[in-house]
Amino acid sequence: MDETLELVAEVLAAKKVLIVYAHQSSGSFNAAAKDAAVKALTAQGCTVDVSDLYAMNFKATATAEDIKGDVKDAEHFRYLKETQQAWEEGRLSDDITKEQTKVTEADLIIFQFPMYWFSVPGILKGWFDRVLTSGFAFSQDKRYSLGIFKDKQAMLSFTTGSLESMFSPTGINGDMNVTLWPLQNGILHYCGFQVLAPQIFWAPSCASPEARTSMLEGWRTRLQGLLEEKPLSFIPLDSFDEKGFQLKPDVHEKHASKEFGLTVGIHLGKRLPPHSQMKAGC
Amino acid sequence: MDETLELVAEVLAAKKVLIVYAHQSSGSFNAAAKDAAVKALTAQGCTVDVSDLYAMNFKATATAEDIKGDVKDAEHFRYLKETQQAWEEGRLSDDITKEQTKVTEADLIIFQFPMYWFSVPGILKGWFDRVLTSGFAFSQDKRYSLGIFKDKQAMLSFTTGSLESMFSPTGINGDMNVTLWPLQNGILHYCGFQVLAPQIFWAPSCASPEARTSMLEGWRTRLQGLLEEKPLSFIPLDSFDEKGFQLKPDVHEKHASKEFGLTVGIHLGKRLPPHSQMKAGC
Repeated sequence: MDETLELVAEVLAAKKVLIVYAHQSSGSFNAAAKDAAVKALTAQGCTVDVSDLYAMNFKATATAEDIKGDVKDAEHFRYLKETQQAWEEGRLSDDITKEQTKVTEADLIIFQFPMYWFSVPGILKGWFDRVLTSGFAFSQDKRYSLGIFKDKQAMLSFTTGSLESMFSPTGINGDMNVTLWPLQNGILHYCGFQVLAPQIFWAPSCASPEARTSMLEGWRTRLQGLLEEKPLSFIPLDSFDEKGFQLKPDVHEKHASKEFGLTVGIHLGKRLPPHSQMKAGC
Repeated sequence: MDETLELVAEVLAAKKVLIVYAHQSSGSFNAAAKDAAVKALTAQGCTVDVSDLYAMNFKATATAEDIKGDVKDAEHFRYLKETQQAWEEGRLSDDITKEQTKVTEADLIIFQFPMYWFSVPGILKGWFDRVLTSGFAFSQDKRYSLGIFKDKQAMLSFTTGSLESMFSPTGINGDMNVTLWPLQNGILHYCGFQVLAPQIFWAPSCASPEARTSMLEGWRTRLQGLLEEKPLSFIPLDSFDEKGFQLKPDVHEKHASKEFGLTVGIHLGKRLPPHSQMKAGC
């Protein structure tokens, strides 16, 4: 009887994980990173689903075809407004609805991809553009810390072409914290997600087989404790006024004498808090 | 005779402009901004070409179909490497080659788009991913200030959904300079482009018809002098060492006592130079 209860508790506690995976080849490092996550999280009792975007031939363009039936205003077609209405009326295309169901069910979403041009590949940008519909993923009132997905976690796991030294505040590509801000704050946290620190695989294509194995080993080790990790810090929405969404004077004042800004983007004209987009507790 | 010479000089001086345009609707504010640019630049004697990505049904996903004939390693397909080889051998798909020809011919490229999720729409990200092929747009030696397109100019012209106050260093979305860094440094300047200050149309969908008209009027005025504008500042490639691409000690030292960092990304742990991604001379 105790065993049955334990089993029920385990099933109830079992987390659902969605991996949104964007690499063309099953022989790639990204595939190995994805496979490692599936294996490690399944072994912990999680249900893991994978959206393999290239294999699905996922449509990356935001068009009127994303709406079943007629659009409201064909001449002045506005994607955000039209898809919001279509979502309300259950008229989004099936491929979008299917992804939205996966998002709704997931406790944690891992985005696994090779960094293309300081961002996600077009096919993954298309997933963000099309799946995170207005109404479904955010609304005027439900954004950032009050966001719709505030009880879910999300994280970026990606490979770079550049060395780590190139993505530092003194490196040619600049501070990786800056490059991550639009993705982690502007997409993930905007929808409310608790953002786990990114998993960055620095230039595996330039690394020795041993170094690649060691990178994957590090990921496997991290995966053991991933579900218990603390998320990155962002500023609560109620620190901003409701009209211009400017930081409230009392919050500003409280941080006036501090050395660093609040976040990479909301830096108050001060030094950026180091590693704030890379490590929890910074 | 003088008139003929003048005509020849004019034709030789006439600039070629490419507008890469990413909006679904010809009735949109983005369409009006694009049309204003075509008209104003044509009137100045420029040859203006438009890549209307949605109308072209432009493919946004980076796949093996971008290569004519067999790929070199189907099992371990690596997009960057395979497309570089295909470019060298003239085996890129026709839609990519066509866009590359337009880029080669252009003196100035204007990217006109609505900002989606703190970045470009998926269809435009796909254009960057697929058209800016390794070898064609950059190489190990030819990047940033030594980049392949260093004699060309490029700029972003875009609409936001958010108000300007929200994209400030004290606003909820954070400093627009940070959001623009990956696009302007990581894509445009990486390929060598001289980057003109962005044209930002703040939340036209929330604005009155008069305010929208006034925004377009401001753009028309700017277009009169656009070809003579000074570009944004970035750090010359030779300020970095060739191994780890870290800022050279003497350059670092020279800037040690300065109040602000060098750029948004290469901030040296100091305050960000204000507006450096928004205005020339900052």
